Amino acid sequence: MRYASRIHQMVGKTSKAWDIHFMAAEKRIRGEQIILLTVGNTDFPSPKVAIDAVHDSLAAGRTQYSPSAGSTPIREAISRLHARKTGRAIDADQVIVTIGAQNALFTAALCIVEPGDQVLVPEPMYPTYPGTIAAAGGEIVSIRSPAKNGFHPLIDEIEASIGPRTCAIFLATPNNPTGAVYTREELSTIATLCHKHDLWLVSDEVYDELVYEGRHVSPSVLSGMAERTICIGSLSKSHAMPGWRIGWMIGPQQLADHAGQIAICSTYGTPTFLQDAAVTTLEQLPRGVPELKAAYRRRRDRLCDWMDTVSVLTCQRPEGGMFVMLDARATGLSAYDFAKGLLLEEGVAILPADAFGESATGYLRISLGAADAVIDEAALRLSRYAERAARHRAVS
Amino acid sequence: MRYASRIHQMVGKTSKAWDIHFMAAEKRIRGEQIILLTVGNTDFPSPKVAIDAVHDSLAAGRTQYSPSAGSTPIREAISRLHARKTGRAIDADQVIVTIGAQNALFTAALCIVEPGDQVLVPEPMYPTYPGTIAAAGGEIVSIRSPAKNGFHPLIDEIEASIGPRTCAIFLATPNNPTGAVYTREELSTIATLCHKHDLWLVSDEVYDELVYEGRHVSPSVLSGMAERTICIGSLSKSHAMPGWRIGWMIGPQQLADHAGQIAICSTYGTPTFLQDAAVTTLEQLPRGVPELKAAYRRRRDRLCDWMDTVSVLTCQRPEGGMFVMLDARATGLSAYDFAKGLLLEEGVAILPADAFGESATGYLRISLGAADAVIDEAALRLSRYAERAARHRAVS
Repeated sequence: MRYASRIHQMVGKTSKAWDIHFMAAEKRIRGEQIILLTVGNTDFPSPKVAIDAVHDSLAAGRTQYSPSAGSTPIREAISRLHARKTGRAIDADQVIVTIGAQNALFTAALCIVEPGDQVLVPEPMYPTYPGTIAAAGGEIVSIRSPAKNGFHPLIDEIEASIGPRTCAIFLATPNNPTGAVYTREELSTIATLCHKHDLWLVSDEVYDELVYEGRHVSPSVLSGMAERTICIGSLSKSHAMPGWRIGWMIGPQQLADHAGQIAICSTYGTPTFLQDAAVTTLEQLPRGVPELKAAYRRRRDRLCDWMDTVSVLTCQRPEGGMFVMLDARATGLSAYDFAKGLLLEEGVAILPADAFGESATGYLRISLGAADAVIDEAALRLSRYAERAARHRAVS
Repeated sequence: MRYASRIHQMVGKTSKAWDIHFMAAEKRIRGEQIILLTVGNTDFPSPKVAIDAVHDSLAAGRTQYSPSAGSTPIREAISRLHARKTGRAIDADQVIVTIGAQNALFTAALCIVEPGDQVLVPEPMYPTYPGTIAAAGGEIVSIRSPAKNGFHPLIDEIEASIGPRTCAIFLATPNNPTGAVYTREELSTIATLCHKHDLWLVSDEVYDELVYEGRHVSPSVLSGMAERTICIGSLSKSHAMPGWRIGWMIGPQQLADHAGQIAICSTYGTPTFLQDAAVTTLEQLPRGVPELKAAYRRRRDRLCDWMDTVSVLTCQRPEGGMFVMLDARATGLSAYDFAKGLLLEEGVAILPADAFGESATGYLRISLGAADAVIDEAALRLSRYAERAARHRAVS
């Protein structure tokens, strides 16, 4: 049977990234004790206020359809949140509620990316980006963000990469996987380029509450950027609610209207009682689960401090987010071989970060979404494994 | 700012259909007592077993990500359901869980419709179809299903409409809005055409448990059709769970693999604890809420019996589904003017069905998802309004 060409463009774009994760998940199913630090789950439970609100909404019989773009209360709650975070007032109609941030990225791409278009994305990037852009018929041109630049993008490369078919820049600040928090200066330069070349800016800000160094800036607040920026957020990271699939996008009114039309056809909306729960959660915990940020920062420091004592491992202490990038090149192993050996010999699963982009070659991504004791145990096994691997290599 | 051409192709495709609904919803918000029989909501509460299972899953902390294609238990539960309904055994891997049936339709279109392709769809059709096909870059060629053919499609028109760019036939049986239950003979002829012209068949079967006349046949069971049929289902209609947004698609393995890749990029999966609840619900109520079908059939008969006594109104008693198609042409009013007058003068909201397709010109769609007494009151007001309108027209 014949498939659409977008499918062929998507195939292979995401497959390698999660190999180690799936291998580890299978071991767990077989009963093996595996420390799983691959994906962006969290050990924190979802807030009680959210869970209670689901019960209340279901008890009130709120199981009918909602407007596809989201109910008025949740769109209002998100517009208030955005104003509180950024100082920029927006209408509730500029908010479209989505199935997590991923659905917002996908909807944004469908709205603005034409088959044959190019989209600039700093790499390392989250591995769903290539498939998302390919599904809309576009192609990614990646911008390097070298480790020695603190995983910040080489801004000069951006202008050099803009061509006649460039329609947008997609970026994530704080970044996944690197945690880089883009500075106001970097974002201002990017904004100027967006103006000069009439580009959209899609700003994935799901980690905006998890900033340890510097300060999160939403590029939508920069001069003249409101009309060309699509801000993406969710409850997944800040509120420990990844499996709820509640996200949103905020853009100029016409973009929101178009995204709302896409929502009618693509999902017909998010679950009604989960929207209700999101409203209550945003009222009571506007900035997320309070202990979360402190815990991730503490774990980041414990893990990085430990890694600093291991001669063949180096950590790039992330400025934000929930992942640590570990440089394992001094072991002589590729990131994939390192991850596979670590899983097989020590039962710890972390992601080889090569699939996130060439600037992450030789790096591994470690999630901080596990209890302190688990992170400590992982650090112990990591150092043991890395030293053994390096020794073995020196001997052979 | 520039938008992708698919957006321009989508604009206007769905906007008129819901005008009366939005007008009525606004009146309700302003405190007016409106009988709302526009959209496919239901007066039935979601099953207690589903609600209890949400509580249990949340209490067990099941708030992390699930696999984007759906967890193994829900894919297995849906594959068992499909086997029980159709007699056709499938692998759980052939099932992709989606955000309701709408997301399955959208995902199917992205998998198989190429920009410039044509898709055949019998009209009247559900008003999201044109936008869904347009989002994938395709164009609908509609097949008439005249009222005098019981709203069944003119099968001869199908072959005559197949051209070099035809890639698929999308159909819904039982149909929305007409309730037509396609016969095995009709579906066999369609299947033969799919074979002959190498077409996909997307079969929207969300009303398969609501059949009053004839018998639902899934075209996937017809000879050689498993390899080219995508079956779409959901809990929305059979289980009174529209606002839960749990649906699925079933197709050949390669289609499912591709749809799973789309799911990673488009939604990153459905809420984990709602999947858990769906598993329990399908175990305990595999064929849906038992009283639902009897209630809709009873309401259909009461409403149609009443309409039979009104000289200027005629009902097409639906073979399935949850809507009645009302022929109001003898009043001399267009469907839109009839619906608007009925809302303003009698406070009853029903949908002008013209937007569903040319074969429904002059018809209105009435939802059966309201209590018997509400349906009776609507019937009284409908007849009063129709007779007044016809009298007024005769005088003027």
